[in-house]
Amino acid sequence: MATAAASKSYALPRDLPLDSGQALSGVEIAYETYGKLNADRSNAVLICHALTGDQYVASTHPMTGKPGWWERMVGPGKPIDTDRFHVICANVIGSCMGSTGPASKASDGSPYAMRFPVITIRDMTRGLVALLDGLGIEKLHTVVGGSMGGMQALSLAANFPERAERVLAIATTARHSAQNIAFHEVGRQAIMADPNWNEGNYYDGEVPAAGLAVARMAAHITYLSEEGLTEKFGRRLQDRDSKSFGFDADFQVESYLRYQGSGFTQRFDANSYLYITRAMDYFDLAEEHGGRLANAFAGTSARFCVVSFDTDWLYPTSESRHVVHALNASGAKVSFVELSAPFGHDSFLLDVPALDRVVKGFLE
Amino acid sequence: MATAAASKSYALPRDLPLDSGQALSGVEIAYETYGKLNADRSNAVLICHALTGDQYVASTHPMTGKPGWWERMVGPGKPIDTDRFHVICANVIGSCMGSTGPASKASDGSPYAMRFPVITIRDMTRGLVALLDGLGIEKLHTVVGGSMGGMQALSLAANFPERAERVLAIATTARHSAQNIAFHEVGRQAIMADPNWNEGNYYDGEVPAAGLAVARMAAHITYLSEEGLTEKFGRRLQDRDSKSFGFDADFQVESYLRYQGSGFTQRFDANSYLYITRAMDYFDLAEEHGGRLANAFAGTSARFCVVSFDTDWLYPTSESRHVVHALNASGAKVSFVELSAPFGHDSFLLDVPALDRVVKGFLE
Repeated sequence: MATAAASKSYALPRDLPLDSGQALSGVEIAYETYGKLNADRSNAVLICHALTGDQYVASTHPMTGKPGWWERMVGPGKPIDTDRFHVICANVIGSCMGSTGPASKASDGSPYAMRFPVITIRDMTRGLVALLDGLGIEKLHTVVGGSMGGMQALSLAANFPERAERVLAIATTARHSAQNIAFHEVGRQAIMADPNWNEGNYYDGEVPAAGLAVARMAAHITYLSEEGLTEKFGRRLQDRDSKSFGFDADFQVESYLRYQGSGFTQRFDANSYLYITRAMDYFDLAEEHGGRLANAFAGTSARFCVVSFDTDWLYPTSESRHVVHALNASGAKVSFVELSAPFGHDSFLLDVPALDRVVKGFLE
Repeated sequence: MATAAASKSYALPRDLPLDSGQALSGVEIAYETYGKLNADRSNAVLICHALTGDQYVASTHPMTGKPGWWERMVGPGKPIDTDRFHVICANVIGSCMGSTGPASKASDGSPYAMRFPVITIRDMTRGLVALLDGLGIEKLHTVVGGSMGGMQALSLAANFPERAERVLAIATTARHSAQNIAFHEVGRQAIMADPNWNEGNYYDGEVPAAGLAVARMAAHITYLSEEGLTEKFGRRLQDRDSKSFGFDADFQVESYLRYQGSGFTQRFDANSYLYITRAMDYFDLAEEHGGRLANAFAGTSARFCVVSFDTDWLYPTSESRHVVHALNASGAKVSFVELSAPFGHDSFLLDVPALDRVVKGFLE
């Protein structure tokens, strides 16, 4: 796991205050931009990435060589049209693709590791707003994100209501449920059970790849629908005609999961996985605003668009409805659509033409 | 992890043939019985246990000291009435509560460990039928099981159609889906990633408790419904007023899962977990019978009752319907009910009075 170097980086001029009461010094935010900022700085679109995402929304990932994670959505003539919009995508704090996180060096020259403070989604959003300040962008045309990116979009709308005209929250939630927390806790325990984790101090030795791979495998199941898994893999065997009566990956779905798990460990830092899952589990936008979600949106004049997918069981449509009801109660302008797509939670990243149309339409 | 000694044990007089083509020698089947066998041996009820279950269906578990796992269902005057029925419950082969499994000694005096042959649900059923032979029970009044126990009940009906008059299959499936396999594979990888697993050779040293605990945590989430988790835990904190901004178990659901995981490692063998999950993943009753599930039931004259729970997402009602359609196609006598219960898959073990009535009624 090397640190990516390709991105622009912004050094925050001030300490970043955190929900924990601590403050983070010397914060760097790594980001990518696409398209030109117009003269009155009114065409900026901030894209917020998901748990294991990064700033390479529409450019090649420097470590994997893979295309950007939302190239289908972002580019010239695409729904988020870089001929028209200035698109910004920044790596969240706590992550490992250039922004300050547990793998970054603390003031003593050693990696923070578990000395890194526990952060929240609002802290990530504060980092993004500090970046916008640095870039001289007062008001975004749109803030958009799927999954954890949608949490940031909602958090920005709630905590910095003057900073975005439009808020597009896709396949997301305003709070992590007990089941959401439970799956993340399994992943964290898998990482922490790996002796290589070593209380987080593995940066000069073997990384806890086995634990991180198990964490990724467990999470990955939640990103896919049961129907999608059945359609894609069913009970088909992997490169064999009959069961091996052993513990190799007989089934395609086993082989696929192992591949997902091991590939992930090449590009992601285990401690970042701990910190970011913790931030998501702590996320409860209502709790931040007196226990009533509508309060969170009381100060906003933004237009909202909320999108869910019918096969998403991680953040099901009921969670989006919950957000929409709160937006309605707060008098906000909101449109809502549940799209039909077979891919479960991952639908927001995949070939769902209806989503392209919704995104394009909302940015008109 | 000690071996339980309280049960009766039956030594199979012959090698047990296995689906893998191998045969298992010196097989012991540990079992418990309740109630008296009548003179014409017509009142025997075989209860088949689930993945991590055991023969202590209605008696205290010798290691945990906890009540039997189905005491609410089995006993004098209960739905499976031991004043009327002779109830038999045996530990499946591959398990670790007295029946022959990977922790048992092979002919060389050392534990089988991973030298134990990979077994199937049908192999488990063969073991149970061999026990019935030994007990002189030609025909069961009823074979009943939930979850993996239901798989054995269906397997017995399909492969030994003359051995049961009634078949009661609860919260089960005739095949493991891609998602079912995926969750089990996460568990297996968690165990195998634990250095203490040591390719299965840990019986004279530290057991892979950390990996087994993670496996149990991941599986446990699938046993509960999202709604049940929300109702039971929600986002409530554990013994604290506010978040710790650390990685302790802040949330009750985290604490609960950790407790479930670590408690499990006290009573269960990690290699048994590998073998039994493998058997479940291999289970596809149609595949065993020419690819058509109805063929599996062509030879049966038993009465069937199939029960599902509306919040069970591990083996959802659609899987029970699939079984019922096959039974209908084969001309079998079948009743089917989907019960409403908030506990997800675990509903078959918990306080669902409607299930008590169904079981009692079917055994009349």
